[in-house]
Amino acid sequence: MIRLIFFPHIYAEAEIDISVYSLEDTALVTALPRANVTIQPIGRRVSVLIGETLYSAARSAGVASEAFCGGRGLCGKCRVIVVEGRELLSGLTELETKFLTEAEIHDGYRLACQMIVKAAGNLLVEIPRESQVRRQRLSVLGIERKVPLGPSISKHVVELPVPTLQDVTADFERLQAALKSKYHLEDISANYETLKKLPGVLRDKNWTVTAALKDRKVIIDVDPGDTTGKCYGFAVDIGTTKLAGYLVDLNNGSVVAATSMMNPQIPYGEDVISRISYTMREPEKLIDLQAAVVGGVNRLVSDALRAIGIDREDIYDMVVVGNTGMHHIFFGIKPEFVSLSPYPPAVQSPLDVRTKEVGLEVNSGAYVYSYPIIAGFVGADAVADILATGIFETAEMSLLVDIGTNTEIVLGNRDSMICCSAASGPAFEGAHIRHGMRASTGAIERVWIDPKTLEPSYRVIDEAKPEGICGSGIVDAVAELFRVGILDKTGKIDQELDIPRLKREGKVLSYVLAKPDEAGAGKEIVVSQHDINEIQLAKAAIYSGTSILMKRVGVETNEIARVFLAGAFGTYVDPESTRTIGMLPDAPTDRFEFVGNTAGSGARMALMSKEIRKTAYNVVRKMRYLELAAERDFQEEFMKALYFPHKELERFPNICKLLTVKQR
Amino acid sequence: MIRLIFFPHIYAEAEIDISVYSLEDTALVTALPRANVTIQPIGRRVSVLIGETLYSAARSAGVASEAFCGGRGLCGKCRVIVVEGRELLSGLTELETKFLTEAEIHDGYRLACQMIVKAAGNLLVEIPRESQVRRQRLSVLGIERKVPLGPSISKHVVELPVPTLQDVTADFERLQAALKSKYHLEDISANYETLKKLPGVLRDKNWTVTAALKDRKVIIDVDPGDTTGKCYGFAVDIGTTKLAGYLVDLNNGSVVAATSMMNPQIPYGEDVISRISYTMREPEKLIDLQAAVVGGVNRLVSDALRAIGIDREDIYDMVVVGNTGMHHIFFGIKPEFVSLSPYPPAVQSPLDVRTKEVGLEVNSGAYVYSYPIIAGFVGADAVADILATGIFETAEMSLLVDIGTNTEIVLGNRDSMICCSAASGPAFEGAHIRHGMRASTGAIERVWIDPKTLEPSYRVIDEAKPEGICGSGIVDAVAELFRVGILDKTGKIDQELDIPRLKREGKVLSYVLAKPDEAGAGKEIVVSQHDINEIQLAKAAIYSGTSILMKRVGVETNEIARVFLAGAFGTYVDPESTRTIGMLPDAPTDRFEFVGNTAGSGARMALMSKEIRKTAYNVVRKMRYLELAAERDFQEEFMKALYFPHKELERFPNICKLLTVKQR
Repeated sequence: MIRLIFFPHIYAEAEIDISVYSLEDTALVTALPRANVTIQPIGRRVSVLIGETLYSAARSAGVASEAFCGGRGLCGKCRVIVVEGRELLSGLTELETKFLTEAEIHDGYRLACQMIVKAAGNLLVEIPRESQVRRQRLSVLGIERKVPLGPSISKHVVELPVPTLQDVTADFERLQAALKSKYHLEDISANYETLKKLPGVLRDKNWTVTAALKDRKVIIDVDPGDTTGKCYGFAVDIGTTKLAGYLVDLNNGSVVAATSMMNPQIPYGEDVISRISYTMREPEKLIDLQAAVVGGVNRLVSDALRAIGIDREDIYDMVVVGNTGMHHIFFGIKPEFVSLSPYPPAVQSPLDVRTKEVGLEVNSGAYVYSYPIIAGFVGADAVADILATGIFETAEMSLLVDIGTNTEIVLGNRDSMICCSAASGPAFEGAHIRHGMRASTGAIERVWIDPKTLEPSYRVIDEAKPEGICGSGIVDAVAELFRVGILDKTGKIDQELDIPRLKREGKVLSYVLAKPDEAGAGKEIVVSQHDINEIQLAKAAIYSGTSILMKRVGVETNEIARVFLAGAFGTYVDPESTRTIGMLPDAPTDRFEFVGNTAGSGARMALMSKEIRKTAYNVVRKMRYLELAAERDFQEEFMKALYFPHKELERFPNICKLLTVKQR
Repeated sequence: MIRLIFFPHIYAEAEIDISVYSLEDTALVTALPRANVTIQPIGRRVSVLIGETLYSAARSAGVASEAFCGGRGLCGKCRVIVVEGRELLSGLTELETKFLTEAEIHDGYRLACQMIVKAAGNLLVEIPRESQVRRQRLSVLGIERKVPLGPSISKHVVELPVPTLQDVTADFERLQAALKSKYHLEDISANYETLKKLPGVLRDKNWTVTAALKDRKVIIDVDPGDTTGKCYGFAVDIGTTKLAGYLVDLNNGSVVAATSMMNPQIPYGEDVISRISYTMREPEKLIDLQAAVVGGVNRLVSDALRAIGIDREDIYDMVVVGNTGMHHIFFGIKPEFVSLSPYPPAVQSPLDVRTKEVGLEVNSGAYVYSYPIIAGFVGADAVADILATGIFETAEMSLLVDIGTNTEIVLGNRDSMICCSAASGPAFEGAHIRHGMRASTGAIERVWIDPKTLEPSYRVIDEAKPEGICGSGIVDAVAELFRVGILDKTGKIDQELDIPRLKREGKVLSYVLAKPDEAGAGKEIVVSQHDINEIQLAKAAIYSGTSILMKRVGVETNEIARVFLAGAFGTYVDPESTRTIGMLPDAPTDRFEFVGNTAGSGARMALMSKEIRKTAYNVVRKMRYLELAAERDFQEEFMKALYFPHKELERFPNICKLLTVKQR
């Protein structure tokens, strides 16, 4: 949490809830020789070395805790119930007494990262029901601008004249000449592997050969005969949480398969900063993390290939996009300085690296391209967003907000662009929220509160019984609590209100969204004062970043013609609610557009068009980046933005109309 | 011997002698689990699997036979005497009875490649005295033109401003900016490894960093602090027989160490064609041969480094030259088609490949460059010769002859050049000559015959007792035999001559050069009629190639201003003798120049000057190559050149004056 420099005290105080994922579907399942632990209800058996923590054993076994902190005892998320064998484990730590209630401790609740196995024997642990495996909604769609097909890779078939004593031109130069005469390709070179195999390939199908060229300049592979029909590319969006892959036919630009999976790095830490911290422990840790994500991408590739029935060798080009931390780790570039002020990336330029050097299992001549990076917290994914939404080429002013733990904000048009990153934290992904969860089955995704009765109604993903609240649900809930007057403008729950839905735990009030009998886990689901404060911090970070960009370029809210919300979260959130809580500028609802996973769209565009890679370079060159931490008015803007919707109400004229006198 | 298409019958008939090398000083010493063989007098013990041949065991142990044929039973060179354990070996083969005399068989002589170990036990074998280890004269010198120092690699030290919140430029772009501002280096890129290590390196010595650039364009490595003083290159001449390496300080162009060794590929076959045949057996064989030579080069590098006390990482550039077969095998490029008509190489263009891809152990960012190739039998070594002698830039007409198993012949000046390859065979290296040996201790290197007494006198390398004749000695001997009238113009020994030095074995006459009591091995050393025929074939190949080049460009002998003789052989041969036998045109002796190992010189030049690489490219582009086999008049020219000095005596007016009427 190194980057969350403005409110560490609040993070430390936040109540934290449990959730544990099974990553059985990731590529990270390795078995190591240890003693015996059975994990229920998934029935996984792992052996744990004496002296090892249960957390690290579970991680090795691919039964991954949703550890925000990477097993450092900071988040309290890795709860398990020890059913049998308590005597084999080290005693309760101070941290555990902090994160667990007395009743929970009595029931056998422990934190996996705190328990060291002290003796051999059989252990039975259970993952609490409310934390069991859920398949998250993995949004793999995003809007995408049409680009003329012009991939970096092209295939060309030629038939060569057979050498004779009168014509002893060498094999490679013979191929060069044929490519020149048939396709007007000049000064063609070849990679080393091609030269090595060329003599055999030429003679295999009677001097008919297909060459795969990069940028119409370098032969990256040759096949005997005519294989021009098989020419594919693979684009990957490396999200902190999920990986999404797209197999594209480079002959026509069509997406022939899309696959996705959880990011196999999750066991090493939930967010980018945790993972970067993990790499800082010792040099091999970076290699571990890189291997995890590269293994995941290889898995996506093989899934896609299986679906379509083509071969790895037929993939000649790859594009990956990700935030700066994910980008650096994917490429094995030391990411630690990205997490330390002043957060410089190691490299901003676009990368185009041999896939075999990264460990990607596609054609050995292929390259993997990444868009350039804007800054330590505005990565290649943001560039992909910009390209997919096309905000860099319109006359009208657009605001692009890609919400995540770090929210990238871009404001501009074809004339100029400015951007920043706001440390919005993981609340919108359900983390640091008492009953927060990801947007998966059982998550409350929409909330309404009746202004008269103050009773809630909600909608649950997959119409299941509610088990928690996801990002869009919590934004709705806070917006509604404020709209109906349960919250005041400072975000405090009205202490004098006496309604059955309000529940007091010590000094802290909560609003009960679902009673125990309604909820799937049989436990009530509440929105606590702490949750509201989390949302307050998050929305203040986003709004203050946005408002500073607007100030710097002198743009008023009514001048913003379009607001693009990107990221998986953005697909489901109600724009009305975002404006009500003051997260985004008070523009008319019809100017908001949910664009989904534009990072993936942007990646596909780079696969289909070499030209768009040049555009990306120019976009980044023209981009002005603001490091919010270095802006003198940021602290003040942030403090004002903590209010609902804002301390300066004139900034939210539309929302203001809805408020009572007391609320203002 | 696939390429020796004109006289296979004579090769098959040739008597063949013994010589066995210990390659203890090569990098090819590997031990495999086998039964016990002791090899005397070197005292090497090897274990041999039942079913394996002694030859393959010896090769595995690095006790390498000088096998011309790669262990295929074609050359009879791998003789050993079985002292103990004859009963453990398979019986005498038909091949052995062909290659060995009855007396030899009685004494226990066998061919190592023909004996299969049939049972466990102890074997004692002896390498005959006349074949024991000799250190060949490895000529590592050659003339070299001065080139202005301008290597491909340059090192640059910069001190970077430290990032701040006001200046969050990424690490790589920060380095780019510093290189631009201090050295005016524009558009610098970096290899992948540099990007990976850059963040750590920059911070290691407080933002002072040294970048090694290739072609002032690409950063191939970065070091903390100022390391500009350490910048080395390594040039290698990959001869079929020997490897010669030169460590060059790229800061001043000086050669700081020179190392040489026998080519570790010798155990796989003595000549290029044998080695190419070896690679054709199965795909892994090419990898074996490549590993052998690359291991040898790594050994040369470490020897040179040890001498100077620098680190492998300080070598940033490499150049290799070799004939086309050696070149292809070194780079792991399928060489088989080079040995099959019409002998096309796989590639002619210059190569510049990452050293790590080839397996060379120097700086991981380094490249290994090779000059372009002219044809299947005119390789990058010939290009190096041309550059080192400078024949491409003078107005006067020059003839360049690099003598070896294949002799490269180049004729031309700055206006035009033409070249060919003559299949001269290995006679000049002592092979296929009854008492032939390499130019090492004990070799007769010069011969004179008294025209009156017809008694010989000779000079032996290292003033040792004579053990055989090397190339220059056999050329001298044949020239003298002809000059004094023992040979007629058809190369036949005068049957009617009755002198004690002539010895008759069946129908075949020999001239006894050294009597048994003079010779080191206690056996006489003769020049046989077969030997003379071998030389006749070899010289005819070279002369007819030369004369066809002269005809094609319309050059007369007197127009040739300079004759450059290159190759290790050329250093010692008497130009008078070469003209007497009609191997080279009858130009005045003062026009002959022995230039030594110009392949090595040319390699060093490419290390010191990037510009010379461009020159090489232009030289090759301008070069006209003649495939002799495709020339209609070649057969006729060859037949005429078989005469001493030539059927058309008017071509040798100077030699002609020395001849008697009968000799004409």
